[in-house]
Amino acid sequence: MLSSGHYQILSILSRKGAKSRSELAAELGLSKAGISALVRDLLEKHILSEQEPVHGAGRPSVPLVVRANAASFIGISLQDDPAVVVLTDLHGTTLNRVELPRLAEPEACIALLASTVKTVRSALPRDRGKLSGIGLALPGFVARDRQTCLTCTALGWRNINIGAALAERTGLPVWVENDAKALILGEQLFGPLKGSPDFSMIFVSHGIGCAHIVNGRLLWGNAGGAGEISHAPITVDMPQALPCRCGNRGCLETVASLLAIGNAARLANLPTNMQDLTRLAAEGRAEAVSILHRAGSAMGIATAQLIQMLDPSHVVVMLDPALKDGVYGHALQYEAESHILHRTNACTMINFRDFAPDSFARGAASLAMRYFIFGHGGI
Amino acid sequence: MLSSGHYQILSILSRKGAKSRSELAAELGLSKAGISALVRDLLEKHILSEQEPVHGAGRPSVPLVVRANAASFIGISLQDDPAVVVLTDLHGTTLNRVELPRLAEPEACIALLASTVKTVRSALPRDRGKLSGIGLALPGFVARDRQTCLTCTALGWRNINIGAALAERTGLPVWVENDAKALILGEQLFGPLKGSPDFSMIFVSHGIGCAHIVNGRLLWGNAGGAGEISHAPITVDMPQALPCRCGNRGCLETVASLLAIGNAARLANLPTNMQDLTRLAAEGRAEAVSILHRAGSAMGIATAQLIQMLDPSHVVVMLDPALKDGVYGHALQYEAESHILHRTNACTMINFRDFAPDSFARGAASLAMRYFIFGHGGI
Repeated sequence: MLSSGHYQILSILSRKGAKSRSELAAELGLSKAGISALVRDLLEKHILSEQEPVHGAGRPSVPLVVRANAASFIGISLQDDPAVVVLTDLHGTTLNRVELPRLAEPEACIALLASTVKTVRSALPRDRGKLSGIGLALPGFVARDRQTCLTCTALGWRNINIGAALAERTGLPVWVENDAKALILGEQLFGPLKGSPDFSMIFVSHGIGCAHIVNGRLLWGNAGGAGEISHAPITVDMPQALPCRCGNRGCLETVASLLAIGNAARLANLPTNMQDLTRLAAEGRAEAVSILHRAGSAMGIATAQLIQMLDPSHVVVMLDPALKDGVYGHALQYEAESHILHRTNACTMINFRDFAPDSFARGAASLAMRYFIFGHGGI
Repeated sequence: MLSSGHYQILSILSRKGAKSRSELAAELGLSKAGISALVRDLLEKHILSEQEPVHGAGRPSVPLVVRANAASFIGISLQDDPAVVVLTDLHGTTLNRVELPRLAEPEACIALLASTVKTVRSALPRDRGKLSGIGLALPGFVARDRQTCLTCTALGWRNINIGAALAERTGLPVWVENDAKALILGEQLFGPLKGSPDFSMIFVSHGIGCAHIVNGRLLWGNAGGAGEISHAPITVDMPQALPCRCGNRGCLETVASLLAIGNAARLANLPTNMQDLTRLAAEGRAEAVSILHRAGSAMGIATAQLIQMLDPSHVVVMLDPALKDGVYGHALQYEAESHILHRTNACTMINFRDFAPDSFARGAASLAMRYFIFGHGGI
């Protein structure tokens, strides 16, 4: 068993890269002898390795790094259909990837996931680290224990303990998280914003997902609901507000989501896929421009609200490439920038990215990794 | 000088109340001998005191508490005119209170504050703890060092190092913070939501202030801008949006603030004070109902957005009593509750409170206290 001291060392090396024993001792406020004992354990367990000594003024220092092959992890995403399963090493590199149908019936879903884990596991190369945990991302609410799915509208689930069920079938620890939160946890460990203490991510899908890192930690909220902007009201002028599948009116997802755009396009006898619709808009077809402009503008207003509410250093917006490069993306950027308080000392960056289904599965794998490295799901 | 171990003990006793040495040792993961040495220092410095021994199964245990009289602090609020200065002890109890004009000219303001500090200090009873720090709350942005006011629209300030200036005149450490953030820091230490890890506070004044505690810590944001919902856009239907003093359009404060209500009332030839306007609305005067309903509804929509974005356990809304008990407060509550995603496992409480000018000054004093108790401004 690893102690809190072991976890602290792994945490620093994972977040900050190679460090010598002296640097670790200074950073943790422990004696060099204490650090050496902890490091010895981690070397014996093959979790750390020593790099070539660096020769300086005094004694040569030996940089220590977390071994990519020390352990492997499986990440599962039920964010969309098909589901995605990835196998990663301890540096977050994807070693294997499988797509499978996302089954709504819980028993069938769990059985298919368990057999997929078995297949991926049996194909694990001998030189790779032992499979040490599974993370699962889904579009819904998860209980504080990160085991039970409380509600998932897309799958029609309510109180499904998919964590325990999958752990029982696979013999591996399983951690479950909301899809947007898994995404941002992956970004925090391995993405371009690695280590940033205050940033948010948004993705536009059927609904709209969102999660925040603040003060260097995931903002989970009182009951796991932080980031649920899909059902935040987007207009004060309620007579114009559309009804939402959640039962309320005027939710952001009734205007800005793929669902909303598709519905509006169908009513206008326009193509409902984003590429064709964006092309029509680019050619100047007024109804197409109008639908995408209204959707992108609403998403921009919501982004400005997020920035005023949280003041992150970055907001990453993950979009269908057609939306990103067309009128939707431009309207989003324009409205967001027009509604942020101008300040001389600060500016939140809005970064667009292509929607990447694998990033949810990789985020889920990084969740399992956090429990392995840090002993808990946060940092 | 206090070490990190001393601060940890003070932090636990401040947040959780009386604890014995054994309880402290268990909580901090330190040896009983180590704890006893640290406690001895704090007893010698008269920061802690021992309570009556509690007799149980084994050896009697001696509860330790932070002494209210160990130190005193001054809190200054420039949130509104008049400014408020309070003197508090280490338990947050107000010992003295002074009102003074809020001067906009920086030199005059600093001089008046310094002389007020001198007066309050000279009136400090002998049995009270040494004056150990000053906190200052203002309606604007503050630099990361918590010394310099970067911008304050109400006072017309830009880059005024009021912290350093006041420290030089008084010989005391001074910490400066945004008014809403000072308010919530005070609440976290001494208010009804003391110790709650995830809650937000909103106050409706000329503008609208807001701050959040998440994961047990103040959400400051990347550059101190978290909570600036006064300038978050409140509508997607921009042709109807009013211009705001910040230069944008459609900001929450153009609809929901005292400024907005007062402007709308003046244009309608109605009384501009909240009590008269609310009474007219209660009597059924349509224009008064309409102005207050629209303002309260917008504030409710913004509250729902906050709840969906952050999922706090509580949102405290501090309001003029007339607004709280009239159509504004009712519309706020109705719209907020109508636009929160219904969940079986969670419900954010919306608590109304009467606007209390002193709570900003007490929050500012608690900021100085944090640096004394915790060695930094957070917890």
